[in-house]
Amino acid sequence: MNTFGQIFRLTTFGESHGPGVGGVVDGMPAGIAVDAAFLQAELDRRRPGQSKLTTARAEADRVEILSGLFEGRTTGQPIGFLVRNENQHSADYDNLRDVFRPSHADYTYQMKYGIRDHRGGGRSSARETISRVVGGALAKTALAQLGISISAYTSQVGPLRLEGAYTDYDLSLTETNPVRCPDPEMAVRMAELIAEVKSAGDTIGGVITGVVAGCPVGLGSPAFGKLHARLGAAMLSINAVKGFEYGAGFDGVAARGSEQNDIFDEGFRLRTNRSGGVQGGISNGADIYFRVAFKPVATLLREQPTVDIDGRRATVHARGRHDPCVLPRAVPVVEAMAAMTVLDEYLLNRTVHL
Amino acid sequence: MNTFGQIFRLTTFGESHGPGVGGVVDGMPAGIAVDAAFLQAELDRRRPGQSKLTTARAEADRVEILSGLFEGRTTGQPIGFLVRNENQHSADYDNLRDVFRPSHADYTYQMKYGIRDHRGGGRSSARETISRVVGGALAKTALAQLGISISAYTSQVGPLRLEGAYTDYDLSLTETNPVRCPDPEMAVRMAELIAEVKSAGDTIGGVITGVVAGCPVGLGSPAFGKLHARLGAAMLSINAVKGFEYGAGFDGVAARGSEQNDIFDEGFRLRTNRSGGVQGGISNGADIYFRVAFKPVATLLREQPTVDIDGRRATVHARGRHDPCVLPRAVPVVEAMAAMTVLDEYLLNRTVHL
Amino acid sequence: MNTFGQIFRLTTFGESHGPGVGGVVDGMPAGIAVDAAFLQAELDRRRPGQSKLTTARAEADRVEILSGLFEGRTTGQPIGFLVRNENQHSADYDNLRDVFRPSHADYTYQMKYGIRDHRGGGRSSARETISRVVGGALAKTALAQLGISISAYTSQVGPLRLEGAYTDYDLSLTETNPVRCPDPEMAVRMAELIAEVKSAGDTIGGVITGVVAGCPVGLGSPAFGKLHARLGAAMLSINAVKGFEYGAGFDGVAARGSEQNDIFDEGFRLRTNRSGGVQGGISNGADIYFRVAFKPVATLLREQPTVDIDGRRATVHARGRHDPCVLPRAVPVVEAMAAMTVLDEYLLNRTVHL
Amino acid sequence: MNTFGQIFRLTTFGESHGPGVGGVVDGMPAGIAVDAAFLQAELDRRRPGQSKLTTARAEADRVEILSGLFEGRTTGQPIGFLVRNENQHSADYDNLRDVFRPSHADYTYQMKYGIRDHRGGGRSSARETISRVVGGALAKTALAQLGISISAYTSQVGPLRLEGAYTDYDLSLTETNPVRCPDPEMAVRMAELIAEVKSAGDTIGGVITGVVAGCPVGLGSPAFGKLHARLGAAMLSINAVKGFEYGAGFDGVAARGSEQNDIFDEGFRLRTNRSGGVQGGISNGADIYFRVAFKPVATLLREQPTVDIDGRRATVHARGRHDPCVLPRAVPVVEAMAAMTVLDEYLLNRTVHL
Repeated sequence: MNTFGQIFRLTTFGESHGPGVGGVVDGMPAGIAVDAAFLQAELDRRRPGQSKLTTARAEADRVEILSGLFEGRTTGQPIGFLVRNENQHSADYDNLRDVFRPSHADYTYQMKYGIRDHRGGGRSSARETISRVVGGALAKTALAQLGISISAYTSQVGPLRLEGAYTDYDLSLTETNPVRCPDPEMAVRMAELIAEVKSAGDTIGGVITGVVAGCPVGLGSPAFGKLHARLGAAMLSINAVKGFEYGAGFDGVAARGSEQNDIFDEGFRLRTNRSGGVQGGISNGADIYFRVAFKPVATLLREQPTVDIDGRRATVHARGRHDPCVLPRAVPVVEAMAAMTVLDEYLLNRTVHL
Repeated sequence: MNTFGQIFRLTTFGESHGPGVGGVVDGMPAGIAVDAAFLQAELDRRRPGQSKLTTARAEADRVEILSGLFEGRTTGQPIGFLVRNENQHSADYDNLRDVFRPSHADYTYQMKYGIRDHRGGGRSSARETISRVVGGALAKTALAQLGISISAYTSQVGPLRLEGAYTDYDLSLTETNPVRCPDPEMAVRMAELIAEVKSAGDTIGGVITGVVAGCPVGLGSPAFGKLHARLGAAMLSINAVKGFEYGAGFDGVAARGSEQNDIFDEGFRLRTNRSGGVQGGISNGADIYFRVAFKPVATLLREQPTVDIDGRRATVHARGRHDPCVLPRAVPVVEAMAAMTVLDEYLLNRTVHL
Repeated sequence: MNTFGQIFRLTTFGESHGPGVGGVVDGMPAGIAVDAAFLQAELDRRRPGQSKLTTARAEADRVEILSGLFEGRTTGQPIGFLVRNENQHSADYDNLRDVFRPSHADYTYQMKYGIRDHRGGGRSSARETISRVVGGALAKTALAQLGISISAYTSQVGPLRLEGAYTDYDLSLTETNPVRCPDPEMAVRMAELIAEVKSAGDTIGGVITGVVAGCPVGLGSPAFGKLHARLGAAMLSINAVKGFEYGAGFDGVAARGSEQNDIFDEGFRLRTNRSGGVQGGISNGADIYFRVAFKPVATLLREQPTVDIDGRRATVHARGRHDPCVLPRAVPVVEAMAAMTVLDEYLLNRTVHL
Repeated sequence: MNTFGQIFRLTTFGESHGPGVGGVVDGMPAGIAVDAAFLQAELDRRRPGQSKLTTARAEADRVEILSGLFEGRTTGQPIGFLVRNENQHSADYDNLRDVFRPSHADYTYQMKYGIRDHRGGGRSSARETISRVVGGALAKTALAQLGISISAYTSQVGPLRLEGAYTDYDLSLTETNPVRCPDPEMAVRMAELIAEVKSAGDTIGGVITGVVAGCPVGLGSPAFGKLHARLGAAMLSINAVKGFEYGAGFDGVAARGSEQNDIFDEGFRLRTNRSGGVQGGISNGADIYFRVAFKPVATLLREQPTVDIDGRRATVHARGRHDPCVLPRAVPVVEAMAAMTVLDEYLLNRTVHL
């Protein structure tokens, strides 16, 4: 299933070492001016090689829009797009043809499909998220007209964790450092940790916090279409994600109802926002905030024991160019998935009344 | 969106105080013997009034199968079913017609739809999960033939938390106590806490752990159809759920890749299972385990400040009959959602090869 | 696949001789007053035993609404409904358990599913269309608020064919005769033909013409969601339908473009409507009209040669109670499918602009 | 809605005068060898400029596969593809920017979306069918392994109609003439008619007959997923199609049941095939055959009266390069849509049993 969404739908394709990655956005509202520079800027935030913290694989990741625009505006027709792969070092992966890397998709793809493109992880490569960032940039463009903004930031790297709520930070600082952490001091410490981990040929995980501001009341629906269920599915579909929580999340379970409930004040103002902007699966107008857990990248630049395609003992030692920590580059991906989810629900909400 | 699944699809309907709740299961494989007693037993695990820990609302919750069976076996045709509502005390809710309960769906439903059935929460009532349990019982029946079993248990109530992994407990003990906790001693303490909270007119949350055993390699797919993304969406769609994690989850983010990776031994055996049975979005044959966070129930049997339908200050004091803690009754709902997700992916996996 | 539609979605269940037939309508817009008498009146138009031309099976076909209404108005929640089966003579079908009726679904169901409910055709019975009529009545209720009306009539029975276009008849006369033909003289001849065919233990087919009036410009979409493709799929899903055409249809292929094109006059008025109200897959504001071909019912009240479940020669002689001609009772079904299609597209069209 | 299918899904994009047309095939079974030459050959059958009967627009229509293949075999991952537009004469369409061509999509697109790419019809151009032919070629490749073959031919041009059934012709002759008619004599007459119409600056319609041979019993499903309803929707989604019928179709309605029924002989052999290979919506193993009506192309190489974007009188005179008759080039498109439908249903049928 390579399609995401119901009305605003992104379909993606592409492998790491094939001709390119791309996709089709269907259901983009008509008549919206698209800024090609903004699309590229979003891709640049995800681009490898943007800082010393990321993989050295240097790709321009230039997006070509193939359809759906006329004189700079969306026509309501599907928007095809393509980002060519460049700078592939496929030979770096020759040793992986018959070996399964630990905690990777190698084994499961091979068993499920009976065939896999082993080069650079093939379809399981994080290059697939390029298409999500393009879709997300289009969604953000539409949401901006509605006054809805999406932001995300690195709130934890390994054990280094921002203890405050998102409201405690100046999120405009997120893009001022390569970690994408809005606390500049913490950003320095996180960067140091990532550098240390990298030099050890190891990797590290973390948490990204996302915030949707300006969301109107009424997005999402009862039962299976709860807004937070959609957001959760969106986030859990990103490579390396292991958990999702919104509002008070896991920590809130220990509290009592009398401590957790968000009390309404006159005019429907909420005294608190432990609900995370969603009640009964439907947005209540408050900020939507959530946390996404990323495991440490499975690819290590050191030798690991494993097995080959016949189940016999082997060792694997990744060469290639890999991120020691995906968090910084995953921030725009989290934003993209949130943007597409919210726009899709906004459009669905248009169908509730005649 | 009241439909769940792609091949095995459950569509649900019904409000708390209307004629009944029910649904349609489409895509159930043909030729499977259905045990009506098992369906009813699953509903009985979810039924109110089953112990002192739950709401006193006493309903038999008898399910009537309306179609799709012939001489006790499934025909491949849609299975309609209905559970009549009984023992409604709609008058208990008269005071809620024009008042919005804190942290409930009252406000968001009213704003979204311009109309709502306020009695017993209407569509937002947890009675909607009856339909899920019926769907889940059918899915479990099919999965049993494949050797796949689903179980869940209460692993945390408020601050009382089982510290061990699911493998540390004898899950056959789960149903021996009303909390549905496989550690009998902890179950007693949890029951005491719930009783204490109840007597204070308050509520409390917790965590349910779910386990899928016997799952073959190959369920789930790359990109947006990752098995854990489907499971996460399923769990997050259950009332009161605030978070989902699988495998090492949020705790695993602090570790390094060299500590987290699951190493293969000869014959594809895994030394560890931090991945939680899913790699690259596809089941790897190991147990799938996950944790689901439930907030404390929003309905308190005490007075709370709030606003009315015009945004003016008001107070609300729930009468009705409500659970102080939903965890014990949510265990079969978690199992049901997992069962439907896994069966759906099993069937989808049949389409990967000619 | 027992679900129809994308936003306004009908899911149906039920067999001829099971407890009942019914369904769930999801995506019905909120706040719409529903007239129970109108729903029942639509069902009465489809009901068996309404005239001498139809089957003698006398069923009240009373619909019970199970959810989704509050104080007579739709709440935006799914509308479950049920029509109990009555007056079944299952014993009439005992002889069909192991025999396949010619040109029926008996053989294909048995081969596909390995099991079937042979009584009264089971799921393949035209009783399934009861659920469509209920869904259609709800859709018509919404469309009426938009000034969109749907009508259909019998335009051909066997060789007896109305030669005029729909604009040549007073469609308010359709319901004045049991054939549902707006030409009273032709209606008499058609009724005589049906009576003659019936007395011979035979059956006869025909054509129903449908008209959507008041449809705004803009419903439907390019590529696979063309409005007429949706209508065609809707009609072809009705039992016994063998063909669909709209506008000039099959007859128009022999003309030249210069004869076929609909010329615009000032103010976008069309001089002609050979396009049938749809251009490029999108409604153009003119009446949408189409024709639906129904084969003669396969069930004959006379002996036919056939085979049994093992492929050995047998004979079959339907007892039961069957229609010699389905056209009169299929008219409301055609209307229902058109109404649901148009409402679904109306709602989808709400998502094209922000 | 630019996606077709449920398991095997084609999503298309592209306009006539944009960078190119293309799409994504998702759900293609894994491990199937793909012959690039066959894909190109199928496109060549649809290519403009292939004979004097078609438009002179000469495009190579070279397809580039962007993903989903590894060492020549499908991997189960989405197959992205792109055909660059070449040889566009966009200036030919400058006069159409503010004028609506009669019986075209110009008016409806403009009204629905508020914007349109007027060059060469934009998204409504038949160039969109390139993507269908690519998807169809992939589907045919899979079906060939199953022994299922799809063929289509021109059975009527204007009033010139093959009176025989498909079994009366040697379909291997279809590709021996530019009209794609299996009766060589009739092909000559049809070609003469098309030439005559072309020289008059006019256009003409016709009928294409399609045949699916080797289809196993069991494809399709009851209710809304009837195999012929899927086929009908597929055909009606092709540009210029006005009608669809299968088996005895419209002509069969005048017959009696006793004349129409297909009688089974020993071993489930059918004496006749008036059902067209489908009973109760499910394939019965006999050939599936159907007819598709195409209207005359709306674009005339002569002056026509019309209105401009403000509804004022205007005239339009197409320059560009256009087909006088789409039938010959639509034959591979009909085949492609049938192939994708049948493969999708084949895969769905894999999910009916555990």
